Amino acid sequence: MKKPNPYCINNNINLTKHLSTPEVIMGHGSIGTLGNLADARLAIVLDTYLLESEFFANLTKNILTNVEYSVICDVKDEPSYAAIDPYIEKIQTFAPTHIVAIGGGSTIDTAKALWAFYEHPEYGWEDLDSGRPLKPFTGKAAMIAVPTTSGTGAEATGAAVYKKYDGSKALVIDKSIRPSHVILEFDLLASLPPKVVAQAGVDALAHVIGALSVETINPLDKMICTEVAVKILKALPISYTTGDAAARDTMHVCAYLAGDEINNAGGGLEHKLDMFAKAYHIPHGQIIGVFLPYTMLYLLPENHYLEIAEQLGIPGENAEEKQRGLVDMIWQIYDILGMPKTVRDTGVPERAYLDNLPKYVEMVEKIGHIYWIKGFKGVDSLRELYLQSYYGI
Amino acid sequence: MKKPNPYCINNNINLTKHLSTPEVIMGHGSIGTLGNLADARLAIVLDTYLLESEFFANLTKNILTNVEYSVICDVKDEPSYAAIDPYIEKIQTFAPTHIVAIGGGSTIDTAKALWAFYEHPEYGWEDLDSGRPLKPFTGKAAMIAVPTTSGTGAEATGAAVYKKYDGSKALVIDKSIRPSHVILEFDLLASLPPKVVAQAGVDALAHVIGALSVETINPLDKMICTEVAVKILKALPISYTTGDAAARDTMHVCAYLAGDEINNAGGGLEHKLDMFAKAYHIPHGQIIGVFLPYTMLYLLPENHYLEIAEQLGIPGENAEEKQRGLVDMIWQIYDILGMPKTVRDTGVPERAYLDNLPKYVEMVEKIGHIYWIKGFKGVDSLRELYLQSYYGI
Repeated sequence: MKKPNPYCINNNINLTKHLSTPEVIMGHGSIGTLGNLADARLAIVLDTYLLESEFFANLTKNILTNVEYSVICDVKDEPSYAAIDPYIEKIQTFAPTHIVAIGGGSTIDTAKALWAFYEHPEYGWEDLDSGRPLKPFTGKAAMIAVPTTSGTGAEATGAAVYKKYDGSKALVIDKSIRPSHVILEFDLLASLPPKVVAQAGVDALAHVIGALSVETINPLDKMICTEVAVKILKALPISYTTGDAAARDTMHVCAYLAGDEINNAGGGLEHKLDMFAKAYHIPHGQIIGVFLPYTMLYLLPENHYLEIAEQLGIPGENAEEKQRGLVDMIWQIYDILGMPKTVRDTGVPERAYLDNLPKYVEMVEKIGHIYWIKGFKGVDSLRELYLQSYYGI
Repeated sequence: MKKPNPYCINNNINLTKHLSTPEVIMGHGSIGTLGNLADARLAIVLDTYLLESEFFANLTKNILTNVEYSVICDVKDEPSYAAIDPYIEKIQTFAPTHIVAIGGGSTIDTAKALWAFYEHPEYGWEDLDSGRPLKPFTGKAAMIAVPTTSGTGAEATGAAVYKKYDGSKALVIDKSIRPSHVILEFDLLASLPPKVVAQAGVDALAHVIGALSVETINPLDKMICTEVAVKILKALPISYTTGDAAARDTMHVCAYLAGDEINNAGGGLEHKLDMFAKAYHIPHGQIIGVFLPYTMLYLLPENHYLEIAEQLGIPGENAEEKQRGLVDMIWQIYDILGMPKTVRDTGVPERAYLDNLPKYVEMVEKIGHIYWIKGFKGVDSLRELYLQSYYGI
């Protein structure tokens, strides 16, 4: 049975919103905007490795000369309730006007939680992960996200993932925790390790390709997803192999737009199949990358990706052939990026995978919203898809 | 001398913002959203011709069944201080929660003024057209724009044009008068007269092509402008000649995005040259359409439009040839659309045009921001451009 699609404002008509976006400031030197904030108190949350970086030294010495700031916490690992707890009181005491998150998805997610607790001191984790909408924020502070990788899209979404006290995962989705501002500072990109470029970039690609398969995607989002996918497929191999600045800038902008699109349309099948992989500590972008091409083939003969294939000039006698050609192109790009092409190649042991398949299928069904993927063939079809993704086709 | 660019947040770095957008709801039947607003009081401002339409009858009889509403005014002509004055008290008395503008640019601009006066009852026209920023709106009402033509972009911008009491023009630019929500109702498009499709469509094309020439345009806006230009060049002739529903839907989405882009990046040279034409009552899209190709050639050898030409597969030995090919393609599309290709063809008398050229040039300089168009050759070069645009090349 088709459950209501949360992204659809009126379930009687095929219709979605393009949500209001954060304000985005971008370019080389855009971090300088922080120095122009009048009467601001910045609570900074950042990746641990940045603490000793030249970038951060420049920020504090040359940019924040007239701005009060405090480093509330540095983030080492994936965000967990236990890791964040000590900083909740600290941020409340500092009483910032802006919460500034500089880092990858973990850092931005940490800041989102601290923002929620600062706005609502009466909240505990059970309020954040209850699944009920959060009370509107009071406007005590704005949140500025400064992503350092080009892919998670955390800067553009009202979503965050945390490890609970018991080790299980909490997914919080609420428009209130969407950053109010985004700074895309291109100067951060030159030092990105190629591995991070590859994994984050493939995650961004999956955001737009996945969004294109959601039944209720509207023509505006479809247009942007198609354009962003084309741009990523061209820029990502260049960014990875040569570190070319223009390609990295393009990837950074595309990653923001891709995050905006998954926030508007919702995720594709590849973003449901991966849930089991957290237990194996496989990087998110890697496992998403593995599943992406198999889900694209699975959803044929839907023409979700035809326009991407045509814009790239991929030959084929018909729509299906062109889209199969697109999947082949993605696998060729994986070869360039050194990305695994099967679940087996990520190191998940065969025995455990096969034994647990029924549980994985159950997890996918539990996440929900899979019935809004156009071309989904029912829960029973997932076993075969999982097997293909493990052994390859 | 280069004046500061108002679209640039920090004049020391080449950097613009991508502003936060309205919430956009789109699709066939999206107007139904108005029926779902709880405890709403809708002040409706609409095009006169819609009053007797089937669309409006359906809206009032079948959609607004549980919503209080009042038609505050119907708009016949371009908005003027005198025409709007009688409705200021009316809207204050009705005390709406939402101001809903259904119509073309004139209707949306009328609603923007009524919104400002409703939010700030102490304001007079001299506050609106003072050039100083408006005081932040109080949030008494949201504004929902429902455009009926595909081109002005008024639904996406914080700009409006009014005729003053003395007949001169007031241009109001303020982020506060940007609609909070946009409904792109595709059902309104089937009955659009081809002439309106053509003129509005060319205006939208100019919004994105013009924005691409602004020196500080950022990579995100550049990406969207390029994509939208390509889409318009493909969809507009189809929408005009066949009325094809998919092409009209695409044009409607593109027109919104193009309005968003002129709001972000600013207008091109063609949107400065046209100011004199209001006295001759030439439709805005028509005169903008005439100037667009000449300004594109004038700005060569800048490569503002190269990516559009390449995406369309326009042949050429080098960047300049490809872009000249793009201009030829635009003129070919004008032939299909029955659009004039010179100022002479719009009916402006030769004698008056030549006599007034120095005044036109002065007007362009007064509007300002022309120095932020990359490739601008100084005020003295405008005379030749005006002559080319009159007689053709």
